[in-house]
Amino acid sequence: MKIHNFSAGPAILPASVMEASARAAVDFNGMGLSILEISHRTKDFEAVMAEAESLVRELSGAGDDYAVLFLGGGASTQFFMAPMNLLNDEDTACYVDSGVWATKAIKEAKNFGKIEVLASSKDRNYNYIPKDYAVAPQARYLHLTSNNTIYGTEIHEWPETDAPIVSDMSSDMFSRPIDIERFGLIYAGAQKNLGPAGVTLVIVRKDLLGHTTRKLPAMLDYRIHADNGSMYNTPPVFPIYTLMLTLRWIKEQGGLEAMALHNVQKAQLLYNEIDTNPCFTGTAVEEDRSLMNVCFVPVNPEHEAPFMEACKAAGISGVKGHRSVGGFRASIYNAMPQESVQVLVDVMRDFAKKVG
Amino acid sequence: MKIHNFSAGPAILPASVMEASARAAVDFNGMGLSILEISHRTKDFEAVMAEAESLVRELSGAGDDYAVLFLGGGASTQFFMAPMNLLNDEDTACYVDSGVWATKAIKEAKNFGKIEVLASSKDRNYNYIPKDYAVAPQARYLHLTSNNTIYGTEIHEWPETDAPIVSDMSSDMFSRPIDIERFGLIYAGAQKNLGPAGVTLVIVRKDLLGHTTRKLPAMLDYRIHADNGSMYNTPPVFPIYTLMLTLRWIKEQGGLEAMALHNVQKAQLLYNEIDTNPCFTGTAVEEDRSLMNVCFVPVNPEHEAPFMEACKAAGISGVKGHRSVGGFRASIYNAMPQESVQVLVDVMRDFAKKVG
Repeated sequence: MKIHNFSAGPAILPASVMEASARAAVDFNGMGLSILEISHRTKDFEAVMAEAESLVRELSGAGDDYAVLFLGGGASTQFFMAPMNLLNDEDTACYVDSGVWATKAIKEAKNFGKIEVLASSKDRNYNYIPKDYAVAPQARYLHLTSNNTIYGTEIHEWPETDAPIVSDMSSDMFSRPIDIERFGLIYAGAQKNLGPAGVTLVIVRKDLLGHTTRKLPAMLDYRIHADNGSMYNTPPVFPIYTLMLTLRWIKEQGGLEAMALHNVQKAQLLYNEIDTNPCFTGTAVEEDRSLMNVCFVPVNPEHEAPFMEACKAAGISGVKGHRSVGGFRASIYNAMPQESVQVLVDVMRDFAKKVG
Repeated sequence: MKIHNFSAGPAILPASVMEASARAAVDFNGMGLSILEISHRTKDFEAVMAEAESLVRELSGAGDDYAVLFLGGGASTQFFMAPMNLLNDEDTACYVDSGVWATKAIKEAKNFGKIEVLASSKDRNYNYIPKDYAVAPQARYLHLTSNNTIYGTEIHEWPETDAPIVSDMSSDMFSRPIDIERFGLIYAGAQKNLGPAGVTLVIVRKDLLGHTTRKLPAMLDYRIHADNGSMYNTPPVFPIYTLMLTLRWIKEQGGLEAMALHNVQKAQLLYNEIDTNPCFTGTAVEEDRSLMNVCFVPVNPEHEAPFMEACKAAGISGVKGHRSVGGFRASIYNAMPQESVQVLVDVMRDFAKKVG
C-alpha cells in the first residue's frame, strides 16, 4: 500500500531525491565509494557544497552581501546563536510570540540582550498571528517565526519596519518567494522543506556581523563559518547532499513561484473540504491559515478515533494533531503531491457520508 | 575496480552498514517510508535511539552514572561545550598539547576557566605523545586527545591521575577496550570509527554536571540533552541510524577486544613493511605509533609522485599525507579490512623492487 506521509517533521521529501540519496549511499558519482565514507575535502563533495550554496542564492535572491551557511545543531541552536552574534548585552531586539518555538527563541535570546516581546497570541492558544505592534526604534532586529507548525498559522504579510527581520523559517522555507531585502537573518532546520534532519540553513547579512564585542566560540561565530564556506569543521555531509538534491528539485519544478502556486492549490483543496464538511472545523483564524500545516478538529469529539482509523486504512500517516491543539494536522510541505491531499479529502468526505 | 578507502575522515564504514543505510533511505523497517522522511518521535526511530544508547553502554561499560548523548556540531563544538559545562571561570583544568586538534581544544577552553597546558610535543612537529607531566591537584579534569590523526600518534598508556580524564576520542573511539572509570567525559565525532559525519557521541559522568554556575543555552547544556534522551530538539536521524548499525556491527565482530586484535594485526602488517622497505620511513616515534593512522614519508622525496600513481593504479584512495607532515597517511579504522592493507603493502613492495 502506498503511504501518504503527512508528518509535521522530519517530513516528506521528493521521491526522486530519496532515491538518488540512497544510490549515493552505495556509490557516489561513480567514485566506487559511498557518500557516507568520503572526505568532505574531496572535489566531489566540494562541488556539492558549492552547488547547494549557489542554489540557495538563486532561489532566495541573496547576493554577496549575505553569507549562506549550512550548520549542525538545528534551529534550536539558532535561537541563541542569532542573538549571541547580533547583540551586545545592552542592545535591544524585538520578538513576537506566535507559539512554542517563538517562546523558546525569546527565552534563549534573553541571555544576550534586552528583549522586548511586542505581542503574543498566547491568549487564544496561538491560533492567530499577532499583528498590531510597534517595533522599538532602537531595535537591532525584529524576530518572527514565519510559520507555526503546531498551530497551523503563517505570516502572509510581513510587517513594515526599518529593523532587519530575523526569521525562523524552519517550516515554510522555500515554500514561496522571499523578499530577501527585508531580512537580516533567516534560519531553517532542513527537516521540513529542505532535506533530512541534521543540517540547518542560515542566510545572514554580513554587515550585521562583527558588531558584538562578546567572545564567541569558533563554532558559534557566523563569520568563521562564512570565511570557511561552512567547512570550518567536518560538515554533516549526507544531510547536505540530500538538501542540495532537494533544492535542485525545487528549481526544476519552476522555483519558488511554482512552489507557491502548487502549495496554494493543495491548501485550498484541503481548507475547502474542512470548511464545507460538517464533521470538521479548522482551528486557525482564516486569514492566518498556514499553507504548510493544516490543523482541524472533529465537530464531534467521539469522531476522533474512527476518523484516525479511516485515515490509517487509506495509507494516510502522520495526521495526529499536536497534543497542545488536539484533533488532526495535515502537513503538506513542498514535496507533498496533490494526489495525496486528494486521498485525505476523499477520506474526509467518505467519513462524513458514513457518520452523517 | 575495487576502491580501497584509506581516507582519514569521513572514512570507511562496514560495507554491510552502508548497504543497510541505503536500503533504509528507500524503505525503513518495511514502513513504506524512507528514514529520511519519518518523525524522530515514531516508535521505529525511538527504538533506534534506544538501541544506539544501549550498544554504547555495552561496548564502553558506561553505567547509569554516565549520560550517553548523540549531538550535532562535531567534536569542534565539544572543544568549548566541555569546559563550558564542567568549569567555572575560577576553576583549573589541565590540557596536553599533542597536535592541532588539542591546540584548538585549549584555545576554546581558555574562555571558560584557568587552563594549564602541562606539556606539548610541538617541538618535534607532534611526532610523539607528551608523557612526563604532573597534573595540578586542583584540576577539575585532564584533557587528552587519544589519537592524533594528522601525525599518526596515539596514547597507549593513560597517565596515572586522580583527576577525571576528558578525552577527544574522535579518531580511535571503540577501536579498543575502554577503562571507563578513568574518564569523566569522552567525546567523538562519528566520522572515523562510528558512522557518517553529522553526529557526535558524548559519554559524560553525571556527577560532574551542575557544578558550573554560568547560564547555559539549552542546546549547550549536557543535562538538558541527558534529560531528553538526546531528543530535546530533532536529532540528526539518518547519521544516528548509521551509527547504530555500525555499533551493532562492532558487537557482531566480537566487541572491542576483537576490534583491538584486528586493528593491531593490520597496523603491524603495515608498520613492518614501513620498517623493512628501503623506500619509506615512519614519521611517528615507535612507542607512540597510532593503530588508526599510519604516517610515512618516502626516503627519496622524488618518489612521492610515482608512489602516489602506483597507489592510484591499484585502487588505493586517500593516502596523501596531511600538508603539515607530508608524504603518506594510511588510515586503517575499524572497518578497514586486512585485505586492503595487504594491497597497500604489496604496492609498497612492488614499488621498492621497481625503483631499487
